[in-house]
Order: sequence, then structure tokens, then C-alpha cells
Amino acid sequence: MGYREEMTAMGKRAREAAHQMAKAGTTLKQRFLEKTAERLGAERDRLAQANALDIAAAEEKGLPKAKVDRLRLTDKVLKEMTDGLRQVAQLPDPVGQVTGLWTRPNGLRVGRMRIPLGVVGIIYESRPNVTVDAAGLCIKAGNAVILRGGSEAFHSNRCLAKILQETLREVGLPEAAVQVVETTDREAVLELLRLEEFIDVMIPRGGEELIRFVAENARMPVLKHYKGVCHIYVDERVDMDMAEKVCLNAKVQRPGVCNAMETLLVHRAAAPVFLPRMAEVFRRHGVELRGCPETCRLVPECRPATDEDWGMEYLDLILAVKVVGSMEEAIDHIARYGSNHTEAILTEDFDRAMRFLQEVQSSLVLVNASTRFNDGYQLGLGAEIGISTSRLHAFGPMGVEELTTTKFIAFGSGQLRD
Amino acid sequence: MGYREEMTAMGKRAREAAHQMAKAGTTLKQRFLEKTAERLGAERDRLAQANALDIAAAEEKGLPKAKVDRLRLTDKVLKEMTDGLRQVAQLPDPVGQVTGLWTRPNGLRVGRMRIPLGVVGIIYESRPNVTVDAAGLCIKAGNAVILRGGSEAFHSNRCLAKILQETLREVGLPEAAVQVVETTDREAVLELLRLEEFIDVMIPRGGEELIRFVAENARMPVLKHYKGVCHIYVDERVDMDMAEKVCLNAKVQRPGVCNAMETLLVHRAAAPVFLPRMAEVFRRHGVELRGCPETCRLVPECRPATDEDWGMEYLDLILAVKVVGSMEEAIDHIARYGSNHTEAILTEDFDRAMRFLQEVQSSLVLVNASTRFNDGYQLGLGAEIGISTSRLHAFGPMGVEELTTTKFIAFGSGQLRD
Repeated sequence: MGYREEMTAMGKRAREAAHQMAKAGTTLKQRFLEKTAERLGAERDRLAQANALDIAAAEEKGLPKAKVDRLRLTDKVLKEMTDGLRQVAQLPDPVGQVTGLWTRPNGLRVGRMRIPLGVVGIIYESRPNVTVDAAGLCIKAGNAVILRGGSEAFHSNRCLAKILQETLREVGLPEAAVQVVETTDREAVLELLRLEEFIDVMIPRGGEELIRFVAENARMPVLKHYKGVCHIYVDERVDMDMAEKVCLNAKVQRPGVCNAMETLLVHRAAAPVFLPRMAEVFRRHGVELRGCPETCRLVPECRPATDEDWGMEYLDLILAVKVVGSMEEAIDHIARYGSNHTEAILTEDFDRAMRFLQEVQSSLVLVNASTRFNDGYQLGLGAEIGISTSRLHAFGPMGVEELTTTKFIAFGSGQLRD
Repeated sequence: MGYREEMTAMGKRAREAAHQMAKAGTTLKQRFLEKTAERLGAERDRLAQANALDIAAAEEKGLPKAKVDRLRLTDKVLKEMTDGLRQVAQLPDPVGQVTGLWTRPNGLRVGRMRIPLGVVGIIYESRPNVTVDAAGLCIKAGNAVILRGGSEAFHSNRCLAKILQETLREVGLPEAAVQVVETTDREAVLELLRLEEFIDVMIPRGGEELIRFVAENARMPVLKHYKGVCHIYVDERVDMDMAEKVCLNAKVQRPGVCNAMETLLVHRAAAPVFLPRMAEVFRRHGVELRGCPETCRLVPECRPATDEDWGMEYLDLILAVKVVGSMEEAIDHIARYGSNHTEAILTEDFDRAMRFLQEVQSSLVLVNASTRFNDGYQLGLGAEIGISTSRLHAFGPMGVEELTTTKFIAFGSGQLRD
């Protein structure tokens, strides 16, 4: 059987399972999530065996240690997976929620009801815990899911998928609600991306190259998660103690992630006091600064920024710094170099705070708080399947609700159209 | 200049205009819509001249009369356009609406705020009024729009676009907020479909072939509007007088549109009384029936349906009819042959009404009302840019709100991430 037939058959099974899943009640889906958590704990040995195969293969291939470590299903990773599943089990079920109901002049009562998206495709790299996290969220929202993990985690993913499917069968849900593409051939992925009839949305999670490949080849809609070039603008009217703590947190609390600050913009009136002080704090924390000429004058040890520094996602202890003449200049800089991910203003001025909130078009805009809050858990969504940087359907962190859509419903009493 | 450069330049101008549009206030957008309505009335002669060129070309090419008529900018069409613009001007502005605000344990107040989608691309066929309708809705929602109309309406579209741009300039909005692709070459469209950096969503409006072409070639998300194979299920417990009126309305009030009924499903217990009676009404209205064997036994003049009749979008005075043993059988039939557009149940039974609403996964599901209500105006959205049959972002009629997205906003007081 060629890849086309194989993927099409998989898509058909998923569509059929999605029909069943859409009717599955809250309790049944909850039971599945809790049972899976239980079983993952009980099947520790079986998982360890599968995982060992991936680790051995990775070491043999000579993958760097950091990459090999990301593959490991340690007790800590296992606990995070099971805790995550139990948390998702407790979240409110979005399916069936009516998000509004209004009455038309002819008496027809019209509303919107949340329903599952249908079939979700997820293409991801390396870390095997995504298999469980993503499957859990998709099932909670009443979807079927097709997962295609990275080749390095092949055995771990297959073992996790089997456990998920065994649990689906055990609780009486369709096994095909979770399917894993068991080949690492790119041709198979290409066929998957052509199944717009059977897959409603594709979510790539990984590096920029993977996301571009999916976006260029997929015929179904793609929810993209591109890079985060996050800015903080420090206004002229600012509480400098607060600004110092927020900027430090945004840069160093976890510099390797997409919601860490990459560029600091400082109002000219605040710069002479704030920048030398902040630079000293950054110096103590090992942050390298790359500044505009004005920044370099105020902070003599600062290295001059080049054109490439604006809009750079360092994912490291490096920060671009620029002095601006006004908030408008800061907003323009963000529009030009930002990636629409996360931007914050630090200010005591109410008008400017509200204007910044309104005018900056990023997936999260904050006043007086760290950019590091752009995360489904932190914002209160309960869980997260990724942070969308495309504007359609979901913009920003995607939780369970973002894995649903709405249909219109209408309650009538024989209404006719004139 | 090649198409790639031309389209890229257009995309860049649109992106720049979208930044301006996002900041445009409600009053300014309203003034644009009202002024355009006014000016369209005043520029009647100029429009008539441009339109005459299209009509002459169409007649010369020997287009069928119905197609030529759809091109005509008659006084009636002009009035509909200007009335539409004035209505859209009066709708509430969705931009800036905060759709929810909650407080996190750390005191951070998190919410969602509506913002424009950005740049909307619309590719459509023939009727020139779409130029004005679509541009009006996009501007209302704070977007920039790139329009590519059919070659038959070339001169009319160009003239309408000029009037729109003149009005944009007059009220102080960026002219590039409305741009028209002034070539009918398919290569130009292909280049447009590759501009995922500058166009946030593509909306094709037209026949299935056009939609497939766009879906297969676009790198940005596509909001599709496929066919409507709409079903009505007449339950065993039904008010037959009501059912007769609703079925007649759904089939004959305007048979050539996507929300007209194409298949009637009747419960076996209701069929012996309902079908002969309904068949008589349909006969009087010139509707040809194509029935399952049971239907043909009850309605002797009924022509037997073939396999192709199930799932057929006739867009004509033809109706497929099937007797079913239960509501479940009706729902399964719909899942198998339907197009997820519009489905209705006619019943007096509360439980079955609620189950049908819940289990049928179409963009509009009705109880005791005609399928013809699946329309933005009829459902109370105030306007409509199309009916989406894809589930992502918008499912069903798309109004002004569906031309926006939401970003997260957060009000803090120095919150840091642990």
C-alpha cells in the first residue's frame, strides 16, 4: 500500500472517529483522561523499554547531549504528563456550551453552540510528551487527532499511542480517535498535508523550517507558531524599581523560550537614569547588551547593535536596547521588527497604557507585567497546545476552547423566509 | 515589472494600510461608508459608462443572457449597494470590544480584545456589487482588502475601486486600504496566493472550481464556501401543517441558492400521511421528486432516486426524498451525504429536537424553521461576506465580527513569572 492509500485510510478512520467523539459525553472523556494518567504510571516499565530504544539510537547517531536529554521519559516528565492529563480532565467541557442566544423579529431564537473542530493533525519534533499532552487536549475538546512525531522519538511515541488507544477501547471511545503516523518519511507527511477532506486543521510544533514546510504544503488551514521577538517599552513615567524587576524577569527567567524579551525600548527621558542602572543588573546576570548609539553613550561597556539586532530572536542571554523619543516611535519599531507575539509597556501613565494596549497588534499586550506570561496556563486557559502567531481562529495561546468551533442553532415555531 | 513584484508591492501597501486602519476610529470608518454610499449615487453616469464596456464585451463574447444580466449595475443593484453600506455603517464597531476579563491568582487581569484580521484577500466571480459589499465590510472591521474580481466585470470593478479609493482619501483613510488586482491573468492570482506574509486570510467566492483552485494554491488560510446540500428531517411527531409550509418554503422560495433544501427525510410513521400530501403540494409548485423505493410506493408518480441523488446539490426545482426508520438513521444519512451547511428537524418532540441540535454538525441546525434562514442578515449578524463551510475561525455566515480576531490583553502591577 502506498503512502497515499495509507494516509487516506487513516484520514477516513479519523473522520469516522470524530463523528463518535462529537457525541461523547463529558464524563466519558473525563474517564479516558484519568484512566490514561493511571495507566501511564502503571506501564512505566513498558515505556522505559521503548524509550531506551530511542535513546540508544540517538546516542549511536551522535546527537548532542541536550537533544538526547529532551527525548528521555524520566520520572519527572512522566509525572508532568500524568498531572497534565488530570488537570485537563477537570477543566470545563467546552462542547455544547451556548455562547449567545438572541431573538429575531420573526420570533426565531438564534444562538451559537460550541462543537469540536473535528479532526486535528499535529506534526511535531522530538519530545515524546507532546504525544500525550496534545492527544489529551484534543480528546477533551471532542476531536480525533492524527499525530506525527519526530523520528528520534519513534519507539516512545508508538508505545504512548498504544497506551492511549488501549485506554480509548477500555472506556468505550473509538480507538481511531488517536492515531500515530508510523513512518518518518517526508513523502508520508506530504500525503497527510493533502487530506483537506479528512483533516480540519494542521498544527505544526517545532522549528521555523518545519512550520514553513507545513504552511507551504498543507491544503487545510494551518495554525502556525512562529518565533517570538518580544519587546518591552519603558515609558518616561515609570516606577523604576518595578521596571527593573520586570525587565530582568522577562529576559533572564528563561531566556531560551519564545516569550522572553529580545528588545528593550526606553523613552529618552527615562534612559539617562534607567539604562545605566538596568545595565548593571543585566551585567550581574550575564546578559550581553547590544545598543543603539544613544544606549552606548549611556552605557559605555555596551556593544553597538547592528541592523540585524533589531528583530532578532536570540533565545539567549543577549538583549538589543534602543532609546526612543516617544511611545509612537516604540510602537512603530515594534510594528516593523516585532513578530506579533508579546509586547509590554511599563508606565504609570493611564492614557499611554490604554493606547499601547489598543494599538499594538500582538497576540498578548501587557501593561506593567513580564512578557513571560504569554502561556496558556499563566493566562488562565488551564492548558495549552501552542501559541498561535497567525491571526485566524486563534491568536495567542490555544487552550481547549481553541480546539473547538461554533455552529449556529435556531429554535423556531414554523418560521418561513419571505 | 513581473507579477511577483507587482503583487508583492500591492501586499506591502496593504499591510501598511492595515496598520493605519487598525487605529482608525469608529466615526472615521462610519464616515467613509456613508460618503461612499453618497458618492456612488452621485457618480451614476461614470459607473454606467464603465459598466457599459463590460456589458458590450460580454455580449460580443456571446455570454448567456443570464450571465450578462448579473453584470448589470442597474438602479436596483446600485440602491442595494448604497443601502447595504449605510446599514453596515450603523452596525456596532467590533474593534476594541473586550470579550472577557478575568483575574489570575497573582492579580494579573487578563482579557481578550477584538482587533482587525489585518489584510483580507477576496477572489470572486462576475457580480461587481461584491466589490463594494466586501470592501465595506472589511473597512468596517478595520481591515485592508485586496480584491480580485472576475474578468467579465473588469471595467465596473475598476471604476468602483476608484470611487472607493477617492472616498478613502477624502475622509483621511489610507487609499491602499482597498486595492483591486487589475489583471485577469491566472499567474497574477497564483502570486497573490503566495503572499502569506502580507495577506492574513483569503476568501474565494464563486463556483467549486475557483474555491478548489484557491484552497490548493494558497499559503495563507482560506475561508471556503462550498456547496449546500441541505436536509430537512420530518419526525414522526410533527405538526403536518407546519411541516408542509416549511418544506415548501425551503424548497421553492428560491431554489437556486445554497440554503435551499435538496433532500427531504421523512420518518416511516409519518410518511404514509405526510408524503402523499406533501407530494401534491410540490406537484402544484412544479417540483420534481426523486424518491427511495418506499417513497415511490407512497407517491406513485415519483421517479426512483439513483445513488447520485443522495448528496446532490440540484439548485433547481428537484428534490430527493427518503423514508427513514428513526432520527438516528436521518442523522447518519446527513453525516454521510450532507455538506455541513444547513439542516433542520421538524418535530414536536423536545428530546429529539435537542438531540438533533446537538448531534448534527452543520453550520446551522434548526428546529421547526426553514433552511433558508442560513444567511447573515436573517440570523441577525447585520451583514454577510459569505457562508463558511470550513470549521476553523468561522463556521456559517460571516459578518463583521468574523472579519476580526482577538488578542489577549493583561493589566498588571509589576507581576513576575516564578
